[in-house]
Amino acid sequence: MTQDERVTEQQPDDEMPWAEVTPDAARRLLVAAVEAFAARGYHATTTRDIASRAGMSPAALYIHYKTKEELLLRISRIGHEKALRILRRAADAEGTATERLAEAVRSFVRWHAGHHTTARVVQYELDSLGDEHRPEIVALRRESDAAVREIIEDGVATGEFQVPDVPGTTVAILSLCIDVARWFNTQGRRTPDEVGVFYADLVLRMVGAAPRA
Amino acid sequence: MTQDERVTEQQPDDEMPWAEVTPDAARRLLVAAVEAFAARGYHATTTRDIASRAGMSPAALYIHYKTKEELLLRISRIGHEKALRILRRAADAEGTATERLAEAVRSFVRWHAGHHTTARVVQYELDSLGDEHRPEIVALRRESDAAVREIIEDGVATGEFQVPDVPGTTVAILSLCIDVARWFNTQGRRTPDEVGVFYADLVLRMVGAAPRA
Repeated sequence: MTQDERVTEQQPDDEMPWAEVTPDAARRLLVAAVEAFAARGYHATTTRDIASRAGMSPAALYIHYKTKEELLLRISRIGHEKALRILRRAADAEGTATERLAEAVRSFVRWHAGHHTTARVVQYELDSLGDEHRPEIVALRRESDAAVREIIEDGVATGEFQVPDVPGTTVAILSLCIDVARWFNTQGRRTPDEVGVFYADLVLRMVGAAPRA
Repeated sequence: MTQDERVTEQQPDDEMPWAEVTPDAARRLLVAAVEAFAARGYHATTTRDIASRAGMSPAALYIHYKTKEELLLRISRIGHEKALRILRRAADAEGTATERLAEAVRSFVRWHAGHHTTARVVQYELDSLGDEHRPEIVALRRESDAAVREIIEDGVATGEFQVPDVPGTTVAILSLCIDVARWFNTQGRRTPDEVGVFYADLVLRMVGAAPRA
């Protein structure tokens, strides 16, 4: 893959984050909430902190979000929907299971590295959601899991992959990719794209894919 | 491996947690701090919360720990020293690189699954340590990294492993094992031991180890 192809391919995941959130004030508050939750954790953050980071008054925040949890739910939902879209697109694409699994890992890792602050909040604050809202997010996670499992099952069926435990391997692959958000550092030696390419290779080894020519 | 062997093998990692912390009051406070940090995050926890969880007064806490950060540092140091001991023991053991890497992963994963609450605090609250204390912990992490890298380098040298990028693969293997602390659930279908055995197999695939007879 040339540098140019990689840049082009990166676009769909790197659209302006939270572009779907309108009006502008609601989006600014969401960005401020992600930063505050990532810096100090959900429970240590107040709606006053978030409003202040966004350069707004607490009263202005309440126009858009009734509670702090509503902000977390919105962030978590958008993040999980994005993850699912990435994995679903790869699962539904043309190509062999090997190609589709590699693309799923490349794009999922690229997102977790490129948006590591958001990804940390999305992945680590799940327990902070109340019982009322957690099931919705857990359902999205199950769908993400199913998209990856589907590709692996296809690869086993065609003989491309050798996988003794498909559900366990699915969990491990997603886990490996998600943890990129914890250690990825913009000062590190690899770009998000490069980590994605490297990880696709590791994951193909995990599923016992035949080495490519 | 029989059930009995597994139980026996598990002992060294499953000694009473924090046994090295004395007197008893200091240990109880440390256990309470781990629970509080895991439940609400470091920044949202007060020393009063910790004392109260331990059934003690804030004044009694200050006899043992001057600050909340001192508690986190103590937890983080013990956790990282434990991780290093596990990995170092595997790296220095007799046996082929394949056997030593499998044992490193089995015991490291078993610890992260079996002590997932502690492991989450140890792994996720690193940024909450002040600049004064973080370098000590970062140095322990580098040593853990070196222990795994050493085994992989040995395996590449003997021809047991096929690894194009040893440092990158080392990071990925540790990352895969650490993230077990995030998703492991005592109600899940696998015990900490079983996850360890399964992961050792996945990691041997990641390093391109020759399939065992």
